[in-house]
Amino acid sequence: MQSRRNFIAAGSLAVGAALLARQALGAAPTKNRRIVLAKRPQGEPTPADFRLEETPIPALKDGEILMQTVWLSLDPYMRGRMSEGPSYAASTGLNEVMIGGTVSRVVASRNPKFSEGDMVLSYSGWQEYQISNGGGITKLDPRIPRPSYALGVLGMPGITAYVGTLDIGQPKEGETLVVAAATGAVGSVVGQIAKIKGLRAVGIAGGKEKCDYAVKELGFDACIDHRDANMPALLKAACPKGIDVYFENVGGAVWDAVVPLINTHARIPLCGLIAQYNATSLPAGPDRSSQLMGMFLVKQVKVQGFIISNYFHRMPAFLGDMSQWMQAGRIKYREDITRGLENAPQAFMGLFKGSNFGKLLVQVAD
Amino acid sequence: MQSRRNFIAAGSLAVGAALLARQALGAAPTKNRRIVLAKRPQGEPTPADFRLEETPIPALKDGEILMQTVWLSLDPYMRGRMSEGPSYAASTGLNEVMIGGTVSRVVASRNPKFSEGDMVLSYSGWQEYQISNGGGITKLDPRIPRPSYALGVLGMPGITAYVGTLDIGQPKEGETLVVAAATGAVGSVVGQIAKIKGLRAVGIAGGKEKCDYAVKELGFDACIDHRDANMPALLKAACPKGIDVYFENVGGAVWDAVVPLINTHARIPLCGLIAQYNATSLPAGPDRSSQLMGMFLVKQVKVQGFIISNYFHRMPAFLGDMSQWMQAGRIKYREDITRGLENAPQAFMGLFKGSNFGKLLVQVAD
Repeated sequence: MQSRRNFIAAGSLAVGAALLARQALGAAPTKNRRIVLAKRPQGEPTPADFRLEETPIPALKDGEILMQTVWLSLDPYMRGRMSEGPSYAASTGLNEVMIGGTVSRVVASRNPKFSEGDMVLSYSGWQEYQISNGGGITKLDPRIPRPSYALGVLGMPGITAYVGTLDIGQPKEGETLVVAAATGAVGSVVGQIAKIKGLRAVGIAGGKEKCDYAVKELGFDACIDHRDANMPALLKAACPKGIDVYFENVGGAVWDAVVPLINTHARIPLCGLIAQYNATSLPAGPDRSSQLMGMFLVKQVKVQGFIISNYFHRMPAFLGDMSQWMQAGRIKYREDITRGLENAPQAFMGLFKGSNFGKLLVQVAD
Repeated sequence: MQSRRNFIAAGSLAVGAALLARQALGAAPTKNRRIVLAKRPQGEPTPADFRLEETPIPALKDGEILMQTVWLSLDPYMRGRMSEGPSYAASTGLNEVMIGGTVSRVVASRNPKFSEGDMVLSYSGWQEYQISNGGGITKLDPRIPRPSYALGVLGMPGITAYVGTLDIGQPKEGETLVVAAATGAVGSVVGQIAKIKGLRAVGIAGGKEKCDYAVKELGFDACIDHRDANMPALLKAACPKGIDVYFENVGGAVWDAVVPLINTHARIPLCGLIAQYNATSLPAGPDRSSQLMGMFLVKQVKVQGFIISNYFHRMPAFLGDMSQWMQAGRIKYREDITRGLENAPQAFMGLFKGSNFGKLLVQVAD
């Protein structure tokens, strides 16, 4: 949590220390640009919910580092933090910096654990610079071939796919797995792990281009366009033996199409419900929640919600397996890069429309 | 399945064999009374859905046994078999004998594995006699102190409570468990196992008498009367630290009261939804199924439907633990006995009104 704090509030300018620090840095940056939560969205976020600000960068104190954001990850979970309702993590306060995982470069250090030039994984949020005491900041694992991968296939989305598919999904050879957002950061890895484990992998994605990519590049056995009015029938045809593992990351209409195809003893790792994140009210009746529980009972389904931060003990196994699979060409990965911090809100809003094609990142600096 | 078949249809009377068999038996029974499914219920079952019939008992063939039903178990799951919709087991055909677990006495045997006088666990259904080739029939375990217990605390309801609470519920000392139908065959055992494992056990039952029994006799920490209009508030007050394990066997209004109290990482073993079994349509009002999935996600809940027939490998552990706990006085058990096969429909209909107090049984013969 500390790394999310607005460093401007950390104390008044200590002029002597600042002078010392800047002499050591040479042309040290003095201004930070950041995007704050201007107001809480009603339904889908709009540009008015964000505000770009410029703030001074205070001098480093002993033990602190100054990090420049190189890569900012944009992820669906951020929508939840913009609301006030209860969630598994505290919501972002009004006028606070939007949170987010980053790959950052240490540009000044008064902390012996970090050196200028270190590339680190941080939660600096939607801003160009952040000062930290180093808590929660980790140097990039040397197995990560490109720094931005630490925010995707070899980072939180990757381990979410890994833990959800393997630990919770318990896939068995010959079974059928379905995942939506099949070309996204999580879904693409889920489908490819399913193939490695000998399952039939069926993806759902928005539009022909993404579906073609899922089948031809990622190796899915089939991919259904959720914009097609016949999506439920197409999904059924693509799952002739029903669904044994449904990796749930979207909810909404896809879930409705999946439910009738769920097999006895199916597992449903539940990691996100992006289609519902912007909902302001419940869908009109009838209330199907009792029907849903009845289905879980009759089909002996296991549904398990999981938050990946509780599975970080799986990181070594994950990095070991994934590095190997990537080197062997068995996991492919695609990034969708927006340049410039000022374009982050637009890119983020596109997430909920499926505008991105691959893991969504903002390149904040070179 | 074979044991559910109507033995009358098994073939025409083989007169010679019948004479031989009856000579061996002495005063062998010649007439069977049985209750068949007359029509499929709409909503709650009514007397018109059942029909009492008298049929002749054919002679035994080589390898067969004739069993007299002593105890017939009446259980909520039978409601599902009366409907045509998909369930985890085939529905009972019209004019077929109502299915049901029984404790029966072998009154004639042409099968070397069974002797006259053997007490067996069978699925003879709602009838006085059944002929079987012995398939699926097991002699009562000698650890069972009273034959009728094989249909309750030491039978299917007992192992359902055991597996759901321990294997799926994964209870931890100091946690809070909630179960409805707290004085019933399953719920009473769930609560007592929770106490043995060091949990706070909160029951829900219908009426003061049952609630008093749950607390004073069974050792629940609290028991809420679901007929009280303040049930949700009372349940909340009884669970000051929320709910970690909710053993779901009723659904309906109890589930609605439980949902807001569910803790992060809660487990929900789902073994029945008796409040919904008679539903003919979905409840009106906003569709809360997406909200439910959202709660499972945010709270990282595990929901797992289970059918006890898939857990019979746990029978030895179950019988071992339960026998020991019963001998030590740590598990108490109550039966609600109706005499006479003809009274089975009325007793069964009472199950859905909570008329029974303890495990519901029909004593068909002495």
